[in-house]
Amino acid sequence: MRAVRSIVGAKRTDEQVMVEWSDGSTSGFHHLWLRDNCPCPACRFDDVPERTLDTLTVPDDVSPSSVDADVAVLGVVWDDGHRSRFDAGWLGEYAYDGSSDHGGSRSGTASGDVEIRLWTDGPPDPLPAIDYDQVVAGEAGVLRWLELIERHGVCFVRNAPLQSGTVVDLAERIAFLRNSNFGLVWDVVSKPNPDSLAYTPKRLTPHTDLVARQMLPGIQFLHCMVFDAEGGDTTLVDGFAAAEALRAEDPDAFRLLTVTPLTFRYRDRVTTDITFRVPLIQLDDRGAVREVRYSNALLAPIDVAPDQMAATYRAVRAFGRLLHGTRFLAQTRLVPGDVMCMDNYRLLHGREAFDPNSGPRQLQGCYVDRDDFLSRLRMLRAAPAVG
Amino acid sequence: MRAVRSIVGAKRTDEQVMVEWSDGSTSGFHHLWLRDNCPCPACRFDDVPERTLDTLTVPDDVSPSSVDADVAVLGVVWDDGHRSRFDAGWLGEYAYDGSSDHGGSRSGTASGDVEIRLWTDGPPDPLPAIDYDQVVAGEAGVLRWLELIERHGVCFVRNAPLQSGTVVDLAERIAFLRNSNFGLVWDVVSKPNPDSLAYTPKRLTPHTDLVARQMLPGIQFLHCMVFDAEGGDTTLVDGFAAAEALRAEDPDAFRLLTVTPLTFRYRDRVTTDITFRVPLIQLDDRGAVREVRYSNALLAPIDVAPDQMAATYRAVRAFGRLLHGTRFLAQTRLVPGDVMCMDNYRLLHGREAFDPNSGPRQLQGCYVDRDDFLSRLRMLRAAPAVG
Repeated sequence: MRAVRSIVGAKRTDEQVMVEWSDGSTSGFHHLWLRDNCPCPACRFDDVPERTLDTLTVPDDVSPSSVDADVAVLGVVWDDGHRSRFDAGWLGEYAYDGSSDHGGSRSGTASGDVEIRLWTDGPPDPLPAIDYDQVVAGEAGVLRWLELIERHGVCFVRNAPLQSGTVVDLAERIAFLRNSNFGLVWDVVSKPNPDSLAYTPKRLTPHTDLVARQMLPGIQFLHCMVFDAEGGDTTLVDGFAAAEALRAEDPDAFRLLTVTPLTFRYRDRVTTDITFRVPLIQLDDRGAVREVRYSNALLAPIDVAPDQMAATYRAVRAFGRLLHGTRFLAQTRLVPGDVMCMDNYRLLHGREAFDPNSGPRQLQGCYVDRDDFLSRLRMLRAAPAVG
Repeated sequence: MRAVRSIVGAKRTDEQVMVEWSDGSTSGFHHLWLRDNCPCPACRFDDVPERTLDTLTVPDDVSPSSVDADVAVLGVVWDDGHRSRFDAGWLGEYAYDGSSDHGGSRSGTASGDVEIRLWTDGPPDPLPAIDYDQVVAGEAGVLRWLELIERHGVCFVRNAPLQSGTVVDLAERIAFLRNSNFGLVWDVVSKPNPDSLAYTPKRLTPHTDLVARQMLPGIQFLHCMVFDAEGGDTTLVDGFAAAEALRAEDPDAFRLLTVTPLTFRYRDRVTTDITFRVPLIQLDDRGAVREVRYSNALLAPIDVAPDQMAATYRAVRAFGRLLHGTRFLAQTRLVPGDVMCMDNYRLLHGREAFDPNSGPRQLQGCYVDRDDFLSRLRMLRAAPAVG
């Protein structure tokens, strides 16, 4: 975070109020913008920072009759007599001239303190991990855990109790769970009449979960409680690293996958039929990859225009080869007591086939949404330092 | 739904298999597309329609060594000996030459049987309603209820029991609830230390709920249990009709609002700090409005480039005037026993201020996601006719 600048002057132009900063720079604020963001108790509800001013009651040509500045405050008297006082720190944070540093609200990520480390040169070795006791000891452990997930896309919580429900207790230290047609918490075991390939002993190629839903679950938790079966090793792939490799090495394919919606569909035979059209790679408004969505199992028949079909298949397969390949791949075998915690916007996961006759394998899983993961991160960072 | 066409012939070209239909038309299917969508038990898991074929194991230049067609089936023998048989109805549905009719998977809406009726000439009069007893009597009532919501954006369930929990029981006849920081079910009453303007007696201008989250809740349910207070009338606005009016009457503003992400932010003082950047109007890939997101209270300071600020404010205010105006507005007063069920991607809702000293007002609410609303609609329509 940059230091708060102080105000050295302010003047009114036809369209804006120009604020001169102590570092020699100037920020312009349009009249309507300033009036709309007046923080006084008549314009904004105090208990929660919601705007109570009905912006549409402000005339299009609202204008200051005077402005005054001291080091910490810009004062404005409006032509209708209303008075506003803007804190210098707030003005600096929300200046829209490229000088501000409120990455949080711009990019939809947390406040930007964590450097995201892609698996460009292979997965982190060893894979990021934290002990269960450290997470449950208090907020400092939770913060460290969440930052490891944010930075690397995955963090293992080791030595968790083997009881059913442990994964729920752990996830709820972040936020309430995200529900789905599979339930709030689900047991990944081979079972009769499965409603997903996950509930068979078959191999699962790398995928993100719930791809046919409008919004992916943000963080996925998989708690290994029992694992005596042969086979069933876990695969993890950094989808962001794969997307960046595609951008660098096959820019046409990359571009096509950011603008071509493809259809995913999940259905069972009883209750659920869900479908969504979405590009495999989604960018934020600065061009950074914000979501990779991939499942060969649930990709519906591609329905682009006939003259786009060959190029679309070429792009999907170029990306698929990066996602199914070894460049960005970690392979590991879960141990009872491990809780694998994954960023499901970024990391793909899968498993090798296992032999259910060789012994049991039981995982328990649940989800938390990305909104609530980021909210918890922001609140932890805003809190007084702990631990 | 169009009648299933029969196949009258098939031939192989360098890139595609050309299927001639009984109506005289021809559809082309690329070789790789056909191989990728082979429905045989080796390529697709039977219990759920998930692809088990690892598409990347198919060569880029896979090619049929022979094709044969009868009325109902296209048969392909591939150059590696694998055999595929495609049902004519399935091929017709997934043909990607513009002749198919599988609107459901293309647009992310339900299967297209419901004609959406915008409030272009004012709200429906009377407002759509169904009796509670009809909804709980069985699937036919549920289907009628959901189709009214889909068609008009709102449906009132009348004469519901006044007990707490009724709204949950009702919503769960569609699907599991969507959770949020406000809880699975929430009581809209004026309360001390409110964490939202909703929990005050203040006026709420028309808004969609949970605008600062990545995904809006799809359907909102508000059950009026007690209402003796003066004031507090309900407002409902058709955001889709407003967006279409903007498209017709101010196309520059419309376009700007479909491509300019604006930031919404919700925070309380204790647990939650959520923010998302998203255009106010979102289109599907055919250009139809699929989501309107609007809340004057939670719109954060606009942070577009300085030379875009005036145009952005102009567009937001032009849309705001349509949303806050009377052209697409219904006003009503809830009666105890009413459950107002709204499409939160389309309809905005609000309320006038009320006087908490004049008597109590208690609503109870919850949400269901749009995925699960549409899934229930699809399953009801696919089921044998009832009632």
